[in-house]
Amino acid sequence: MVSVEWRDGAVRFIDQTKLPHEELFVETTDYRVVGEAIRSLQIRGAPAIGVAAAFAVTVAAHAHGLNSVQDVRDAFYSALHFISRTRPTAVNLFAALSRMQRVVEQHADADPDNLRRSLLNEATAIQREDTEACRRIGEYGAALITSPSTFLTHCNTGALATAGSGTAQSIITTAARQGNVRRVVADETRPLFQGARLTAWELLRAGIDVTVITDSTAAFLMQKGEIDVIVVGADRIASNGDVANKIGTYNLAVLAEKHNVPFYVAAPISTFDPHTQSGRDIPIEERNERDVTLVGGTRIVAEGARVFAPAFDMTPNELIQAIVTEKGVLKPPYTEAIAAMLSTDKNELAPQPQGVPTR
Amino acid sequence: MVSVEWRDGAVRFIDQTKLPHEELFVETTDYRVVGEAIRSLQIRGAPAIGVAAAFAVTVAAHAHGLNSVQDVRDAFYSALHFISRTRPTAVNLFAALSRMQRVVEQHADADPDNLRRSLLNEATAIQREDTEACRRIGEYGAALITSPSTFLTHCNTGALATAGSGTAQSIITTAARQGNVRRVVADETRPLFQGARLTAWELLRAGIDVTVITDSTAAFLMQKGEIDVIVVGADRIASNGDVANKIGTYNLAVLAEKHNVPFYVAAPISTFDPHTQSGRDIPIEERNERDVTLVGGTRIVAEGARVFAPAFDMTPNELIQAIVTEKGVLKPPYTEAIAAMLSTDKNELAPQPQGVPTR
Repeated sequence: MVSVEWRDGAVRFIDQTKLPHEELFVETTDYRVVGEAIRSLQIRGAPAIGVAAAFAVTVAAHAHGLNSVQDVRDAFYSALHFISRTRPTAVNLFAALSRMQRVVEQHADADPDNLRRSLLNEATAIQREDTEACRRIGEYGAALITSPSTFLTHCNTGALATAGSGTAQSIITTAARQGNVRRVVADETRPLFQGARLTAWELLRAGIDVTVITDSTAAFLMQKGEIDVIVVGADRIASNGDVANKIGTYNLAVLAEKHNVPFYVAAPISTFDPHTQSGRDIPIEERNERDVTLVGGTRIVAEGARVFAPAFDMTPNELIQAIVTEKGVLKPPYTEAIAAMLSTDKNELAPQPQGVPTR
Repeated sequence: MVSVEWRDGAVRFIDQTKLPHEELFVETTDYRVVGEAIRSLQIRGAPAIGVAAAFAVTVAAHAHGLNSVQDVRDAFYSALHFISRTRPTAVNLFAALSRMQRVVEQHADADPDNLRRSLLNEATAIQREDTEACRRIGEYGAALITSPSTFLTHCNTGALATAGSGTAQSIITTAARQGNVRRVVADETRPLFQGARLTAWELLRAGIDVTVITDSTAAFLMQKGEIDVIVVGADRIASNGDVANKIGTYNLAVLAEKHNVPFYVAAPISTFDPHTQSGRDIPIEERNERDVTLVGGTRIVAEGARVFAPAFDMTPNELIQAIVTEKGVLKPPYTEAIAAMLSTDKNELAPQPQGVPTR
């Protein structure tokens, strides 16, 4: 299962809004189609969004009729501007765009084909690095699990959300190979049911026993002592270790604290944002209220009621026992641990503070 | 809005599964139709279930061809046996059936019409007492709210759930008349969306500003300091003050403790069960997994995944700041407060321990 890839000069991705009922692949040479796919969650998951963004600006640079480096640059920046406005919270998007932008800025020669080739190389590198990061996150995280355990997870952090085996889900599948997964409990993850639709589907394909619950059932299971460990992903991690992730993550973190259940966050380095000091600085996207009011074609909210539909919430670092990255496992105090990790990372990124990279 | 009533020899109720899209009233002389309505949540809400159960056994006693007191008794007990098996958790059902059973057991004369009349009087009394209990719960509870506040509530505890203005919701509507409701945040309440469908609908009709959220968004709002008070109902309260209520209630109680938000439970005396010592003794109903997997006609869980779908959870007494009843506001220690209240209640009930009243 490859969530997004480059194929014969086009971007190819699976439409995740159609899963698990239909496996629909979209192949496009139009960066706007990729951007709309990110906006509408056909492509979702912070790392996958980063990879898709890189391929989107690359495909824009490959449009017909771009005969000079300046033409390619113009097309690139139009796409960059468009893509950067699709979703505000996942920092991987901005990290990937910043890397792509650096390629354009550092390009010296006059051959537009060389620039295109450099862009494709960089986008492919972003993809490949994420694949490798997923594998390592799985190994580092699984090492935290020393006996057969019942996992609780939220949203989807698997192959669909990344360019590899996932973040939190990579820990689960790696631990499963080591005989340390008794079963997985998947929050359905309202409003868009990524847990019920995507995580359950991926884990079943991996042969792992999965039980879906409504989000508010997690507390009941923890009260009964039936959850051994919680693993979740992240959409952005501030430099103090505060984590923005799918709405409901903070709820789980509070429950984990109450019930003494280890709460682990898994994310590649591209999810860390050195420009945000704390979770308070992370913009939290609000989705259209129809995400909440409509399920399939069925309206489930009384007409006239207001709806508040944040896509993410913020979990303060003190509720997190460990953050698992491809460089190893970070433990509190996170400000120091994160700074040390980023300073030794050869690919350290400096994404734009909170949104639109400018020309 | 009357959720369930006696009309011209029949039981009349509104089918709550059709709300808010359709206001469909069902009128039946068949106790099995009432029982199936309870089982399928067409009639729901612990106090309303109690009233419906009383009318159901009453309508059974009014069937054609019952020519002796013994005939009426036989019909009554058949219905009692059937109704008592519809739902296991809400104790109001068993409390109401016990009161009705006492009428049959104490009936001395040979006139079946007199027995029928006594049964109808008792069922009507149960209804009338609940109406009055709702009013008083609203007054006692509203007295706890001393300034304009943002309420959070869960599931539905209004007119639909009772024979009056509701339990927790009666506190909200009473406080609103006193100018102390800034707005109400309603958990949508998965899996069956009673908050989004029913509470939002009732509050809008009452002219109260209501915002619907997914259940896991409550934590985010509390973190931001946007919730002043939480009010919920109950399906059964043990003699130590532990509360069984709609799944997700315990989650809210943990969040309330973490964020120092007052957490109040509202319930009439008929919801207290002196036969259960603690929440551990309360049977928790599990619903059919289709409650979770299907919304409208849309399947939202990947095929093959297990589903765990408890209807209720258990909130330990130490997380509850006050329990509001028609006799006043109970505060910890609850064992003593509840015992004192029940001992002074002229209608003190002794429902069967946990289920099926026997002949």
